[in-house]
Amino acid sequence: MSLIVQKFGGTSVADPDRIREVADHVKRTRDHGDDVVLVVSAMGKETDELLRLAQEVSKTRPAREMDMLITGGERKSIALMCMALHDMGVPADSFTGSQAGFLTDANHQNAKILTINPQRINETLAAGRVAVVAGSQGISTKKNVTFLGRGGSDTTAVALAHGLGADACELYTDVPGVFTTDPRVCAQARKIPLISFDELLEMTAVGCPKPAMRSVEVARSYDVRLHVRSAFTWEPGTWVSKEEPNMEKPIISAVVPDTSQSKVTVSGVPDKPGIAAELFRPLADQGVNVDMIVQNTSEQGVTDISFTVPSEQLVIGTEITTEAAKTIGALGVTTDNTIGRVSVVGAGMAGNPGVAATIFETLSDEGVNIGMISTSAIRVSCVVGKEDVERATVALHQAFELHKS
Amino acid sequence: MSLIVQKFGGTSVADPDRIREVADHVKRTRDHGDDVVLVVSAMGKETDELLRLAQEVSKTRPAREMDMLITGGERKSIALMCMALHDMGVPADSFTGSQAGFLTDANHQNAKILTINPQRINETLAAGRVAVVAGSQGISTKKNVTFLGRGGSDTTAVALAHGLGADACELYTDVPGVFTTDPRVCAQARKIPLISFDELLEMTAVGCPKPAMRSVEVARSYDVRLHVRSAFTWEPGTWVSKEEPNMEKPIISAVVPDTSQSKVTVSGVPDKPGIAAELFRPLADQGVNVDMIVQNTSEQGVTDISFTVPSEQLVIGTEITTEAAKTIGALGVTTDNTIGRVSVVGAGMAGNPGVAATIFETLSDEGVNIGMISTSAIRVSCVVGKEDVERATVALHQAFELHKS
Repeated sequence: MSLIVQKFGGTSVADPDRIREVADHVKRTRDHGDDVVLVVSAMGKETDELLRLAQEVSKTRPAREMDMLITGGERKSIALMCMALHDMGVPADSFTGSQAGFLTDANHQNAKILTINPQRINETLAAGRVAVVAGSQGISTKKNVTFLGRGGSDTTAVALAHGLGADACELYTDVPGVFTTDPRVCAQARKIPLISFDELLEMTAVGCPKPAMRSVEVARSYDVRLHVRSAFTWEPGTWVSKEEPNMEKPIISAVVPDTSQSKVTVSGVPDKPGIAAELFRPLADQGVNVDMIVQNTSEQGVTDISFTVPSEQLVIGTEITTEAAKTIGALGVTTDNTIGRVSVVGAGMAGNPGVAATIFETLSDEGVNIGMISTSAIRVSCVVGKEDVERATVALHQAFELHKS
Repeated sequence: MSLIVQKFGGTSVADPDRIREVADHVKRTRDHGDDVVLVVSAMGKETDELLRLAQEVSKTRPAREMDMLITGGERKSIALMCMALHDMGVPADSFTGSQAGFLTDANHQNAKILTINPQRINETLAAGRVAVVAGSQGISTKKNVTFLGRGGSDTTAVALAHGLGADACELYTDVPGVFTTDPRVCAQARKIPLISFDELLEMTAVGCPKPAMRSVEVARSYDVRLHVRSAFTWEPGTWVSKEEPNMEKPIISAVVPDTSQSKVTVSGVPDKPGIAAELFRPLADQGVNVDMIVQNTSEQGVTDISFTVPSEQLVIGTEITTEAAKTIGALGVTTDNTIGRVSVVGAGMAGNPGVAATIFETLSDEGVNIGMISTSAIRVSCVVGKEDVERATVALHQAFELHKS
């Protein structure tokens, strides 16, 4: 008998029928002999609707009150889910983030988990009942309700699996696992049966949408065995775990396309110590999520610095950068919202120096121009034209023979 | 400077515009120099929608989960209300029932308040901020979320006014106060400027819909000054307080029509001790709200017992009564859903023995037949045909000259 934490997202609990389907899934897991802790998100578009309502009511929207409002979505889901379970003869109790023992910092709208004390969850499990926990929420050190941010339910599930010492954390999505690339972009995409935390982390960092990057970080930190799988089938999905010595280590695991970023370039930056800090500190302070940063070597004492930001933050990012550019005496700021990015991720890359060369050759053969390059130990990312992303993805997937298992 | 608890119902916070109107009202109260604690209900039809959703998801609907679900309605209101206040420059913090310090029993769906520890409300007030409290909820001795029942927001407001030692508790409704009778039934209905707890309690017990009877009971127990007034005007409404020696004491204060009840009659009941208990205990156990009970004198060792129940409980009430009637050896059970009730309430009635006679004469003159009679020290209620209720109300309002101030 195992203890399994199962997490279902908003699409899986979007209406009464789907809520009952998830309840049925939980019942079958229990019938199989396992104990279940269930983490659920808000129903379908509920969070969006609450945000819309807040926008209609208020221009200022204090963060503490936004959290009080938004966390109501998950609360609704847990209560309904328990009712559906009860109908099927499965005893279940719902728990808000606070009741489940999630203590967070007081950073409303984007709170971080400090500790978990899942005493009530353990009591419910000991009584032979299912615990249904509201995703993405907790209570702050100031005793206020906090929201962990969009996509926080994955993090709730992983953190809870750690706190409870669960045997596995199953993250259910609308796809059957983690793929070698986006199946919508490349028909040859193949489900990856086993992947390391490091690889999945790199993939989520460069645009792989699920699971949420933060949850993978937590899973890696605490070594929580993740199973990313489909809510619609019982077939095994993708297992995520530490890199074991005997783990089959393909050179390349996945190609990740991404068209969510835009580029900002600051030109004529004086090349002296402290400049980068003066440029990026104000962006960080305003919550602008700077991603790839590339600085060319200096010529005649000045250099260019380029970086990417999420396209929805391009306007504010440009404003802040323009202000900072003046302060540091740079020449000017230009932006480009026609870029895309394609990243190649693989734990075996480190010992194979030819990978980057293969990538550049493949893109060259396709006539795809590379605008920026950024690498880590197990990833190579290239900024290309947005219209070239699909073509580059398919070509790279083919070049590394990812369609072969 | 006074401390005022203001309570606004679901109609007053039904949409973003109305939420801003209530916020504006609170702002003006503060501009006038008073401190405000605001209690709000769920938005418009929100509670009904949550109930509908629960019915779609589940047949069993465990009470603990229903409370988790339903209390989300008021939570949404408090968060949005604080945002609207913040927009107007009024600092405000929202509080769930639990955060506001409402400890209740564990009787889900219909919890009773045990104690109030409004420490956080006091802190917010001390900081010069408005406290916005979710109505009709608390946390049980077992640390679960509880719902006080429909109409529980009035009770929240009154209990909080007591707990905080507030100077007054203002209950805002869609009418400008308590009337001498239902203005929709009798055009001559007049707003009552001052009424005693006892009178208002009797009125709410026999069908006066607002404020909720339970809140009047709490206000009477703890001597909380109530002000029932309109959310749409600034004119004074009806003040409710203890009967003071110098309080103007009209013989009759109000005529209350009611068409929400049905009648159950058990015939041929053996006239021996303990019979009434055997009949009414099972009804109470099943939560059937028995109101007027009339037992005629016994003839030949058997008697008839009639009582009224809310019409929506007639089916279950009849089932339980039929079962109980068999047990005690009664002849049979008949029901009547065509009844109505008209009640005359007045604190001065006790010292004026002619009131009942006037009532009976008035109804006789109108050709209205009386089916059951029940009296208290300050009330006379007559069960009449449902179709006679309006006519009887108008005639009694006229007979006691309630249109004259």
